[in-house]
Amino acid sequence: MSSRSDTKFLLGESDMPPAWYNILADLPEPMSPPLHPGTGQPAGPDDLAPLFPMELILQEVSTDRYIDIPQEVQEVYKLWRPTPLYRAHRLEKLLDTPAKIFYKYEGTSPAGSHKPNTAVAQAYYNKMAGINRLTTETGAGQWGSALAMSAAFFDLEVKVFMVRVSYEQKPYRRALMEAWGATCIPSPSNETEAGRRILQQEPDSRGSLGIAISEAVEEAVTRDDTHYALGSVLNHVMLHQTVIGQEAQKQFELADTYPDVIFGCVGGGSNFGGLVLPLVKDRIAGKDLRIVAVEPTACPTLTRGSFVYDFGDTAQTTPLMKMHTLGHTFMPAGIHAGGLRYHGMSPIVSHLYEHNLIDAIALPQTAIFEGAIQFARSEGIVPAPESAHAVRAAIDEALRCKEAGEEKTILFGLSGHGNFDMAAYQEYFAGNLIDHEHPQDDIDRALAQLPAMGD
Amino acid sequence: MSSRSDTKFLLGESDMPPAWYNILADLPEPMSPPLHPGTGQPAGPDDLAPLFPMELILQEVSTDRYIDIPQEVQEVYKLWRPTPLYRAHRLEKLLDTPAKIFYKYEGTSPAGSHKPNTAVAQAYYNKMAGINRLTTETGAGQWGSALAMSAAFFDLEVKVFMVRVSYEQKPYRRALMEAWGATCIPSPSNETEAGRRILQQEPDSRGSLGIAISEAVEEAVTRDDTHYALGSVLNHVMLHQTVIGQEAQKQFELADTYPDVIFGCVGGGSNFGGLVLPLVKDRIAGKDLRIVAVEPTACPTLTRGSFVYDFGDTAQTTPLMKMHTLGHTFMPAGIHAGGLRYHGMSPIVSHLYEHNLIDAIALPQTAIFEGAIQFARSEGIVPAPESAHAVRAAIDEALRCKEAGEEKTILFGLSGHGNFDMAAYQEYFAGNLIDHEHPQDDIDRALAQLPAMGD
Repeated sequence: MSSRSDTKFLLGESDMPPAWYNILADLPEPMSPPLHPGTGQPAGPDDLAPLFPMELILQEVSTDRYIDIPQEVQEVYKLWRPTPLYRAHRLEKLLDTPAKIFYKYEGTSPAGSHKPNTAVAQAYYNKMAGINRLTTETGAGQWGSALAMSAAFFDLEVKVFMVRVSYEQKPYRRALMEAWGATCIPSPSNETEAGRRILQQEPDSRGSLGIAISEAVEEAVTRDDTHYALGSVLNHVMLHQTVIGQEAQKQFELADTYPDVIFGCVGGGSNFGGLVLPLVKDRIAGKDLRIVAVEPTACPTLTRGSFVYDFGDTAQTTPLMKMHTLGHTFMPAGIHAGGLRYHGMSPIVSHLYEHNLIDAIALPQTAIFEGAIQFARSEGIVPAPESAHAVRAAIDEALRCKEAGEEKTILFGLSGHGNFDMAAYQEYFAGNLIDHEHPQDDIDRALAQLPAMGD
Repeated sequence: MSSRSDTKFLLGESDMPPAWYNILADLPEPMSPPLHPGTGQPAGPDDLAPLFPMELILQEVSTDRYIDIPQEVQEVYKLWRPTPLYRAHRLEKLLDTPAKIFYKYEGTSPAGSHKPNTAVAQAYYNKMAGINRLTTETGAGQWGSALAMSAAFFDLEVKVFMVRVSYEQKPYRRALMEAWGATCIPSPSNETEAGRRILQQEPDSRGSLGIAISEAVEEAVTRDDTHYALGSVLNHVMLHQTVIGQEAQKQFELADTYPDVIFGCVGGGSNFGGLVLPLVKDRIAGKDLRIVAVEPTACPTLTRGSFVYDFGDTAQTTPLMKMHTLGHTFMPAGIHAGGLRYHGMSPIVSHLYEHNLIDAIALPQTAIFEGAIQFARSEGIVPAPESAHAVRAAIDEALRCKEAGEEKTILFGLSGHGNFDMAAYQEYFAGNLIDHEHPQDDIDRALAQLPAMGD
């Protein structure tokens, strides 16, 4: 039995959701289709076949409301799921707020974040399709670690192209991927044409997620035994992450309350989508609920980007997606929340934003770390810099509630711990962090390079 | 409802043990008392008062079977307790063993190990006694992190003397302690007389737990506002850790089985003691159960040390304790399981070993890491090098069961994750690990320096 004074609202393994929730079944307006990068015509399943197994391609376009989670995937989920929903009693006390603060913590996975929720599924479907080798990109390393671990469970080889700035800032992330048997190299690399082209233009390139995706996609397309796995953005990734929000709904029933406002950090959108999509369903059905995506001011995809067709990668090899974007040539500043340094945004999240079903805000990194430290010293967990965006937004909201005397229920997604991000905390304590804000020209220039597509 | 096919056996917050279990109430033979380092006479509460609050001193000598856990401590425990008991289905499959393998995982605490179980209690009792500042030592950093976090919860300052070899191998452990507000310096340091003396004799000293304890104790004794906190060895530390074993007992009821053999790694003995003491009670009561302490061959306190009176620290400032020891001047090799590099052993664990209530084995570090990788690639969690001693012992036992066709139930303590130990894994993969085994002369020489006390 749970009671309202509980710290954690726990579910048993038998309470795990048996299916992923697909928001496409409930959208008031349909989404724009992805387009083939060559022809500009809607991309079909065959266009994606060199990259993904057919099961994932079908999930990408499915409009079924629920898609069963295979038993083999559920068995792996049980290594850390269901994850706890916490009531932040100690943080509330520190802030002296009448608000109730809850957080859903995904850092209990051995890889330390929400990323394995989709990595396990992708590894499974690739294995079932007879694939033995995967390539991918990683920013901060959360996704690369998750795929490395998940691939180990299904006996697949993995090669990870890691954004160079993160590769250098986080040497132990690489060791973690290697512990699970993956190979990890800094991107841009000399191992692909896309990488070599970038290095020719800019030998000191610090890399970006867009470049690393180009490299990983290129290797997958040019090798028959190899597929590609993406850790965010795509519909099937959002789908797999919905276990988070579905569990949270059950846990709020145990807590006998329901959120008034939800915060999640957004890079490509998978943590945010996973947490909020099942609750967006409630909002579409009429529930009074504010849902806020929190992004870094250094990469303000939702708050300052455009909703247009763009490539997912720098080398223009992926299908064009209608999404919020800063332009695929945009180079975000080298902030410590490496997982949020992506020029684009999940088409689903972009669509929801465009239709006013969610809001977005942008925060600078020193404020993020300030909030992270307050959180660590009251709740214990040291957050990943990405997750700290949601922490800070929740703290700000709780302080607004204090001022207004409002007893709101706040939920935020704590997508991962910061155990592999301590170099960033060192920089913060040393006073070395810079709050990057790109001049409008940077963004306009990158957007001006986009192809004109029927939007 | 749990079922035998579950991966995790979970308890709710209301199932948490309300009291710590004190093995002193159930020992068949009484333990030898600690002796005053100056007089050689039994040490009384007053002798310990400069170091510890009276509540902890009373717990150190109590023979009450159960001691209530204060509500404030329980509230903090709820941030990560009860911890899961896992059935290692995937590891069993990998080993193709008829044995059932279970592990109790303490790495879900924000500090990543079992250490906060006592750190929280110690911070609480010190705060209640009006103390505002604590000193301590740390080897691998697990204990220092745990105390830093726990002190933050009760608004205490902390200064950590970190064994220099670990300080250098694990820069991010230091950043973690700082994130929780603690100060961390390498030991031996110039800030204490004990440290300066060592540095004079050996300017390049890599340090040891024994030296770091001397430094931390010296600073606590010489400052009125400061107490000392020890992360292992002492009776009250073992006491606080018994939440682990008590939870495990309840979880084995859910799993509808009971262990035939238990493995835990031992440095000072607190993880091992915490897991096994409640089950030693069952063994004393007649249960057929083998309990095995696993130590490194590089610091073979139980398997090659003597059961005699010795100091807890290098500078001979602590009370003399009757325990298994390699001698307080013994300098263990610089292995990666820094938390196990201690010359002595919990008097309780030593007493149990001497009375054949537990067994002990020693393992070399390359075998440890080999087992850790097998575990990580099947169960996900990358173990701390300390915990990996128990992992390897359990794997070996499961393989013996396979050979003999025995369906034993194996339990081991997975005391923490290895997120801050990836440099050690890098060294392992690079083939740089050395299996240290001290010549008998090293041990004999250190033991010959011990004072002759009535043993």
